[in-house]
Amino acid sequence: MSDKDASNIMWGGRFAGGPAKVMEKINASIDYDKRFYAQDIRGSIAHATMLADRGVLTREDLTAITDGLNTILREIGEGRFEFSAALEDIHMNVEARLRELIGDAAGRLHTARSRNDQVATDFRLWLRDAIDRLDGMLADFQRALLAQAEAHAETAMPGFTHLQVAQPVTFGHHMMAYLEMTARDRDRFAETRRRLNECPLGAAALAGTSFPIDREATAAALGFDRPTANSLDSVSDRDFALDYLHAASVCAMHLSRLAEELVIWSSAQFGFVKMSDAFSTGSSIMPQKRNPDAAELVRAKIGRITGSYVALTTVMKGLPMTYGKDMQEDKEAVFDAADTIELSVTAMTGMIADMSPDAGAMGRAAAQGFATATDFADWLVQNLDMPFREAHHATGAAVRMAEAKGCDLGDLSLEELRSIAPGVSEAVFEALTVERAVHGRNSYGGTAPAQVRAQIERWKEKLA
Amino acid sequence: MSDKDASNIMWGGRFAGGPAKVMEKINASIDYDKRFYAQDIRGSIAHATMLADRGVLTREDLTAITDGLNTILREIGEGRFEFSAALEDIHMNVEARLRELIGDAAGRLHTARSRNDQVATDFRLWLRDAIDRLDGMLADFQRALLAQAEAHAETAMPGFTHLQVAQPVTFGHHMMAYLEMTARDRDRFAETRRRLNECPLGAAALAGTSFPIDREATAAALGFDRPTANSLDSVSDRDFALDYLHAASVCAMHLSRLAEELVIWSSAQFGFVKMSDAFSTGSSIMPQKRNPDAAELVRAKIGRITGSYVALTTVMKGLPMTYGKDMQEDKEAVFDAADTIELSVTAMTGMIADMSPDAGAMGRAAAQGFATATDFADWLVQNLDMPFREAHHATGAAVRMAEAKGCDLGDLSLEELRSIAPGVSEAVFEALTVERAVHGRNSYGGTAPAQVRAQIERWKEKLA
Amino acid sequence: MSDKDASNIMWGGRFAGGPAKVMEKINASIDYDKRFYAQDIRGSIAHATMLADRGVLTREDLTAITDGLNTILREIGEGRFEFSAALEDIHMNVEARLRELIGDAAGRLHTARSRNDQVATDFRLWLRDAIDRLDGMLADFQRALLAQAEAHAETAMPGFTHLQVAQPVTFGHHMMAYLEMTARDRDRFAETRRRLNECPLGAAALAGTSFPIDREATAAALGFDRPTANSLDSVSDRDFALDYLHAASVCAMHLSRLAEELVIWSSAQFGFVKMSDAFSTGSSIMPQKRNPDAAELVRAKIGRITGSYVALTTVMKGLPMTYGKDMQEDKEAVFDAADTIELSVTAMTGMIADMSPDAGAMGRAAAQGFATATDFADWLVQNLDMPFREAHHATGAAVRMAEAKGCDLGDLSLEELRSIAPGVSEAVFEALTVERAVHGRNSYGGTAPAQVRAQIERWKEKLA
Amino acid sequence: MSDKDASNIMWGGRFAGGPAKVMEKINASIDYDKRFYAQDIRGSIAHATMLADRGVLTREDLTAITDGLNTILREIGEGRFEFSAALEDIHMNVEARLRELIGDAAGRLHTARSRNDQVATDFRLWLRDAIDRLDGMLADFQRALLAQAEAHAETAMPGFTHLQVAQPVTFGHHMMAYLEMTARDRDRFAETRRRLNECPLGAAALAGTSFPIDREATAAALGFDRPTANSLDSVSDRDFALDYLHAASVCAMHLSRLAEELVIWSSAQFGFVKMSDAFSTGSSIMPQKRNPDAAELVRAKIGRITGSYVALTTVMKGLPMTYGKDMQEDKEAVFDAADTIELSVTAMTGMIADMSPDAGAMGRAAAQGFATATDFADWLVQNLDMPFREAHHATGAAVRMAEAKGCDLGDLSLEELRSIAPGVSEAVFEALTVERAVHGRNSYGGTAPAQVRAQIERWKEKLA
Repeated sequence: MSDKDASNIMWGGRFAGGPAKVMEKINASIDYDKRFYAQDIRGSIAHATMLADRGVLTREDLTAITDGLNTILREIGEGRFEFSAALEDIHMNVEARLRELIGDAAGRLHTARSRNDQVATDFRLWLRDAIDRLDGMLADFQRALLAQAEAHAETAMPGFTHLQVAQPVTFGHHMMAYLEMTARDRDRFAETRRRLNECPLGAAALAGTSFPIDREATAAALGFDRPTANSLDSVSDRDFALDYLHAASVCAMHLSRLAEELVIWSSAQFGFVKMSDAFSTGSSIMPQKRNPDAAELVRAKIGRITGSYVALTTVMKGLPMTYGKDMQEDKEAVFDAADTIELSVTAMTGMIADMSPDAGAMGRAAAQGFATATDFADWLVQNLDMPFREAHHATGAAVRMAEAKGCDLGDLSLEELRSIAPGVSEAVFEALTVERAVHGRNSYGGTAPAQVRAQIERWKEKLA
Repeated sequence: MSDKDASNIMWGGRFAGGPAKVMEKINASIDYDKRFYAQDIRGSIAHATMLADRGVLTREDLTAITDGLNTILREIGEGRFEFSAALEDIHMNVEARLRELIGDAAGRLHTARSRNDQVATDFRLWLRDAIDRLDGMLADFQRALLAQAEAHAETAMPGFTHLQVAQPVTFGHHMMAYLEMTARDRDRFAETRRRLNECPLGAAALAGTSFPIDREATAAALGFDRPTANSLDSVSDRDFALDYLHAASVCAMHLSRLAEELVIWSSAQFGFVKMSDAFSTGSSIMPQKRNPDAAELVRAKIGRITGSYVALTTVMKGLPMTYGKDMQEDKEAVFDAADTIELSVTAMTGMIADMSPDAGAMGRAAAQGFATATDFADWLVQNLDMPFREAHHATGAAVRMAEAKGCDLGDLSLEELRSIAPGVSEAVFEALTVERAVHGRNSYGGTAPAQVRAQIERWKEKLA
Repeated sequence: MSDKDASNIMWGGRFAGGPAKVMEKINASIDYDKRFYAQDIRGSIAHATMLADRGVLTREDLTAITDGLNTILREIGEGRFEFSAALEDIHMNVEARLRELIGDAAGRLHTARSRNDQVATDFRLWLRDAIDRLDGMLADFQRALLAQAEAHAETAMPGFTHLQVAQPVTFGHHMMAYLEMTARDRDRFAETRRRLNECPLGAAALAGTSFPIDREATAAALGFDRPTANSLDSVSDRDFALDYLHAASVCAMHLSRLAEELVIWSSAQFGFVKMSDAFSTGSSIMPQKRNPDAAELVRAKIGRITGSYVALTTVMKGLPMTYGKDMQEDKEAVFDAADTIELSVTAMTGMIADMSPDAGAMGRAAAQGFATATDFADWLVQNLDMPFREAHHATGAAVRMAEAKGCDLGDLSLEELRSIAPGVSEAVFEALTVERAVHGRNSYGGTAPAQVRAQIERWKEKLA
Repeated sequence: MSDKDASNIMWGGRFAGGPAKVMEKINASIDYDKRFYAQDIRGSIAHATMLADRGVLTREDLTAITDGLNTILREIGEGRFEFSAALEDIHMNVEARLRELIGDAAGRLHTARSRNDQVATDFRLWLRDAIDRLDGMLADFQRALLAQAEAHAETAMPGFTHLQVAQPVTFGHHMMAYLEMTARDRDRFAETRRRLNECPLGAAALAGTSFPIDREATAAALGFDRPTANSLDSVSDRDFALDYLHAASVCAMHLSRLAEELVIWSSAQFGFVKMSDAFSTGSSIMPQKRNPDAAELVRAKIGRITGSYVALTTVMKGLPMTYGKDMQEDKEAVFDAADTIELSVTAMTGMIADMSPDAGAMGRAAAQGFATATDFADWLVQNLDMPFREAHHATGAAVRMAEAKGCDLGDLSLEELRSIAPGVSEAVFEALTVERAVHGRNSYGGTAPAQVRAQIERWKEKLA
C-alpha cells in the first residue's frame, strides 16, 4: 500500500499536514535539546581547536568558526535565536546558523565527528553542570538541617518505630539523620559525575575516524578526565543518565520521608512543628488551616523521578548496538528529573529553615507512653547484672503494674518496683526521666546531646 | 528558626525571589491544568443550572454566570485569555475572570461545591473526551492493518518463534494479529471510560453539602451515568487515571512489538518491508540508508507511559484520605501519556499504511529452513496413523538426512523418505510446499487464507 | 571459541556442573509452573475428548488418556508425584508420566496442539480460578467494612484533607469509602476475567493446524466464551497477565491507603483505633507497645505488585512475534502478585474486623480545630442570602476572633458574631455543633447518617 | 467489632487457622532471611567479643556464647537446624537455639543491641559478600569477551546504527564494547560496596545505648571501614539495597542488549553466530532449529530486577523514621535480584565462550550496502580538501549512480567517479575496501585492529 493518496484518504483525517507533519512531531528534539546549546557550542569550539592544532583545519577557518559560534552563543543567551523544528535538533540548528554567519567554512566543522558522538558529549557536559549545581543546593539543605539541629540539640521528642513511641531522642539528632542521608546523596551524585567524566568526542558515527585527531586534547579542553576507550560503546552508552536518575530517585525518597514527617508533625494531633506561611496554603474560610502543600508535593515528586528511571531503563532494554533513535528519549527523562529534584531540594530547604518546632509539645509527648521502659531494663542489667532477656521480662511486669494504676513507670513506688526486681534502689528513678534517658545514650552516633553536638561540629567544618 | 531574613541569608542564594517564588513554582498547576478549561466551564454551567433549578440561584444570576462563562470559553479558545500563576489553577483563573465580567454573582457559583469535587469532575470529563478521540485513532489504525491484510492475505512469509523460522504463515495473518491486539486495546479503554463515567460533583470538599442539590441532574447534564456514591471516595479517587495509564501502557507495548518487527524487517538482512520516505530519515552521505527512526521512537515510547504509571502509583501509595496535594501530580502524567499514545498510534498508522512489503523476499525466506517440517509430521499422523511423538522423530530423521545432503525436505526422493517412514506415498510432496502448508492450516483462527479472509470480512463489517 | 574444554577452564570455575547445569537452572520452569497442574490436565482432557469426537483419536485411546490423566491429577494432589527439572515444565512432566502409565497412546495426545497454545490455555484457566477465589475474599473484606460502617454510622470523626482537620464526618462514612474502592477493584478483576475468557487451544505452535479440530468444542468444554480469533496472537498474547497485575496493583494501592490510616490512627497522638493483638506485635519490654506490623506490611506490599507489573511490561516490550522464551517470566510475576494480594486482602479483612475504634477520641478530635467553620459560612449563604465568597470572608473573621479569644466558633457570643455578620440569629449556634454538621450534609453520597445508612442498605443487599 | 468469634464467622472461612495464622504468614521472614545466618552469627560473635573487652560480659559467658554460635553455624551449614516460623526471623531462631545450647548466658548476648541494628548489619555483610562474589563472575565474563575479541580482532562485520548497516567494524571491537560496559558495572558495584561499608551495630533500637560499647571495635572486627554516624539513620537506611538494585539493573540492561544481538545474529536471516547446543533448545521435529532460549531469558531478566528496584523504592517512599515493618520487603527484592544477576552473568559468560562467530557471513554482510560510503567522503576531504558537507553531497551522488547501475561504490569506474568529483584519483579504490575502511579508523578507541589490540592488551593486564 505505497499509494500515499489512498492512504491519506484512510488515515489522513487525523493529522492535518500528512505524514510529514506527524514525522516531524515525533522526530524533532529541538524543543528540549536546545537546553544543550551552551554545551554544544563549547564542544564544537574544542573540536575545531583540536582540528586546527592537528592541521586538519586552517587557522583562518578556526577563527571564523570560533567567532561564529560565540556569536550564536550570545544570540541564544539573549533570546534572539530562532529555533527551527525542521532542522530537528540543536546541532543542526547551530550549524545552519553558522553557515549563514561564516559561509562554507561551517561545513568543515563537522569533519571527523558525527551527531552521535556530539550529542553524547553535550549530554555529559550538561549533566556535569547539573550535578555541580545540585551539589551546592544539597549543601545548602544540609546547612538548613544543621541550623535546626544546633538549635535543638537538646530538645527532647519521642523517637518512633512503627510510628509508636519507642525511646526519647532529640530533635537535633533527628535532623542530623537527614543530614547523613543527604551526605550519601551528594556522594552518589559525585560518583555519577566521576564515572561519566570521559569524553566520547572522536568516536564519530560509531567506529572512530581516519582523520588524525587528538582525543586526549579535546577531552582535556572540555574538562574530562580522559577519552572513552571504545567508539561503539561511546555512542550507545547512556549509563550516566541512569546513574543520575537513580541518584535523584534515592534523594527524592529521602525527601519524601522528611516530607511525610512534616505532614504528620504539623497535624493537629501531633503538633510538633508549625510550617511557615510561605510553604503552606490557607483557606479563606478556615484561617486556622495551614495545609502543608509544599511538603505534600515534595513527598509526591519521587513518583515522577522513579517513573523516569523506569522509562529510560525500558527504552534501553534490549537495544542492539550502536545508536538507535530510541535513545532520544533519554533527554526529557533527565531534564524533568533534574528540574524536579532541584525544585524539591530547594523547597525542602526553605521549609526546614522556616519551620517552627514546638519543643513543649514534643517534650510532653516524649514523657508519655513509657518511653523510658528500655532504660529501666538497662538499669537492671547494668546495676543488678541481670541478663538482658530477664530484665526485659521484669520491665514488662513493671509497665503492666503502672498501666493498671494509670500512671507512668516513674510514678511507681520503690516498694512496688522491688516487688518485681528486689535489688532496685532509689537511684533507678533518675534513670526513668526523659532527660536522663536522652543523655544516657552516649554511644558513638547515639542521641545524647554530647554525641549530637560532636556530629554538628564535624559537619560545621565540612560545610564551612 | 523562624527568622526569615536569617534563613534567606543561608539558603536564599539559590532562588532569587525568596520562598514565595519557590512555593509558587512548586504549587501552581495552571501551566498544565489549563487544558481542562472547556471541561471546567462545562461543569460550572451544569452546576449553576442545577442550583437555579433547585432555587439556590436566581434565574438572573444563572443567566449572568452562563453568559460570562461562555465568554471566557471563547476568550480561551481564541487565545485571548491571560492566565495567571498567582491564581494557581484553572478553576481560580476562570472564577477571577468571571468576577471581572459579571461582578458579585460570580461569587455565588461556588456554592455547594469545592475545588476538590470540581477538579475530579473536570479530569473525568477530559479523560472521557481523550478516550473517545483515541478510539477513533485506534479504529483508523485497525483500518490500515486491515488494508495490508487484505492486500497480503495470501502472501507467504516465515512465521517465527524465538526469531527462528518455525512454519510458514501469511503476511495478512500477521497483520490481523495486531488488529486483534488493537481490539483488546479499544475494549480496555472503553472499560476505563465506563468505570469513570460517574459524576463526583456535589461531593464538595469531602463530606457532601447541606444545600439541596440534585446530583442526578448534574450527572445527567454532563453525560455521566450516575453520581458517585461516597463523597470521601469522590475527592480522593484517581483510579480512572491509573486505568487509563494501564490501557495506554499495554497499547504502547503492542506498538513496540510491531515497531521492533518493522526495524528488523527493514534491515538489509531481512528485507521484508521497505519503510516509506515519510517515516524514515536518510543520510546525506548514504542515500541507500533508510533509518526507521519513527519505528524506533514508537518502540521507545512505552518507556515514558509505563514510567507515568509507576509515577502515579508511587504518588498514591499510602496516601491517607481524603484529598492531598500529592494528587496534583496526576495530571501531567496523564497528559503526557495521552499525547504520547496518540502520537504513537498516528505515526504507526502512517507507517503501516505507507510501507511496502516485499512479497518475493518473504516468500523466499518462507521456503527455506525446513519450514514445512511440521507438515511432514502431520502428514504421517493423518495418513499413516502414526502417534504424534513418533512422527516427530521420523521427521527429525528426514531433516537430518536433508541437511546432510544440503537440500530441503521436498528435495529428498520418495525412496529416501520411505527409508525413514515406509508407508510414505508420492502425495507427501504436495504437503511439503509452502503454499500447501499455509492453506492447510485451516483451523479456526489459523493462517490459511480462507481463515484470514473470514476474519477480514468480520472486521470490515465492524469497522465500516 | 567453540572449544568447550578451553572455555570451561576459563569460566567453568563458577558453576560446578558445566554449561548444562546453568542452562537447566535458567531454563526450567517446573519449580513454579507446576501450580498449573490441575489446569493443564483439565485442558488435556478437553483436547483429547474433542479429538475423539472428531475421529482423530479412537475411543479406546481417549479412555486410556483420560484415566491416565485423572490418575496423575490424584498423584499430584496427594503429593505423590515426582517432578523432574530435566523435563523442564509441567506439560512435559505430565506427558512423560502419562507414557509410563498408558504407553504409546500418550503420544497421540499432543496431536494438533503445541506447548505454545497449551501454556496459554493453562495460564488463562489458572488466572480465572484465581480471580474467582479473590473475588470471594474481596466480598468478605467488603462485609468487614460494612459491619464497621453499620456499627459506626453515626460515630463522628474529623474528616481530613492534607491530614488537616477539615469537616466532621462519620467513621461509617469513612469505612464505606473503602467499600466503594473495593467495588471498583472487583469490577476491574471481573473485566480482566471477561477479556481473558477466550480459548487459545488449537492455535498450535503459532499458525493453527491441518487437523480437523473443533475449537468451539474445547472452548465450551473449558468454560471459555469462545476460541481466540488469530493463532499468532493466541500464542504471543500476555495482556491478561498485565490486566491482572494492574488490577492487583490498584487494589494494593487502596489497601496501602487504609493501612497508612491504621498506622496513623493507632499512634499515641491520634488514638482513633486500637488494633487487635492478633494483628499487632508487642515487645516484651514495652507491653504497652502495639506495633501495627500487619498494617505496615500491607502498606508495603503494593511495592512488589507494581514491581511485577513493571517487570512483565519490560519483558514484553519490543518482543517480535510470536512466542519467545522471554515470556516464561510471566508466571512468577503473576503468582507472586496473586499470593501477595490474597494475603493482603485477608490480613486487612482481619484487621478491620478485629479493630476497636475509639468513638470518644474521634468525637473529641472532631469537635476541635474549627471543624464546623464551613457550616457557619453555609448558614450565612442559606439564611442571609450572602454570596459564598463573601460568606467565606465573614467566617474567616469569626475564626480569627475565636482564635484570639482562645475559644471555638460556637463559644463566641451572638453579639460578637453579629459584629461580623449583622443578620446572624440565635439559630446559628445549632449549626455549629458537630452533630448538626454531620447530619446536615445530607446530599446524595454525603456524610449524613441517613445517607450512610442508605448506602449500607444498598450494599447489604448486594453482599447478601 | 472486637468480638473475634463473630468476625470469624464472617471472614474466617478464608483462612483455616484464624487471624494468628494469617499474621504469621504475612509477618514471618525466616523463610528468606535465613540466608543471613552466617552473617548473623559473625555479627553476634563480634558483638559479644566487644562486650567482653568492655567488661559488659564475662570471659566465661563469651566463651560459651562463641562456642554455641559456632555450633549453630555448623548445624545450619550441614542442614541439621530446624527453623521455626513461630520464631519469626533468623535472629530469634539463632538466639532460641543458643539458649538451648548454653542456657541463661544466651540472654546476655542481646545486651546493647536490638534486632533493628542487627538486621541492618547482617544485610550489609551479606550484600558485601554478594558483591565480592559477583565481581568475580563479572571478571570471568570479561575474560570470555576478551577471548572472543582476541580471536576476532580483525574479523570484519557490519557496524549498525538503527539496525541499518553503517560502517564496517570488527567483531573484536564489538566484543570489547561490552567489556567496557562490564567495567562500568564492576565499578558501580564497587561503589555500592564502598558506600555501604559502615557498621550500624551499636545503634540499638534507634537511639544508641547507655552501655559502654566500642563501635570502632565491632566495625573493625567485621571488616567495616567505620561505624555509622547517626543511630536513627542507621536503623532506617536501606540506600545500600537500592544502590545494589540499580547496579544490577544497569548490568542486566547491558546483558539484555547483548542477548538481543545474539538472538538477531543467530536468526537465519543474519547468521552471524551459531549458539552452542548447550545454550540452545532444539525441537525434536525441527532439528535445524536452535532456539536461543538462554539468550531470550537473559534478555528478559532485566524485567524482574528493575521491578525489584521499583518495589523497594515504592516501599521506602514516604516512610516516617525510624524502623517500620515495611522495610522487611527489602530482602526478597535483593535476594531475587542477586540470584538473577548471578545466573544471567554466568549464562551469558557461557554463551559468549561457547558461541561460534561466522566470519564469512559477517564479512560478506560488511561488504554490502555501501558500508564504505563514509570512507569515500573522508577521502575527498583528506585528499581534495573538500569541506565535509560538500563531500557528503558528492558521495550521495556516487551512491545513487551505483544504485542505478546495481553495483557497489567500488565497482564504479574512475571516469564515473570523476564525473562527480573531478579530482578523484585511482587511489580512491583502495579506500573503498572493507579492510581499508576498518584499518583506517585508527583514532583512539576506534575500530582499527591496532586500536582493538591495544585495548585487549590493556585489559589482559587488568584481568590477569
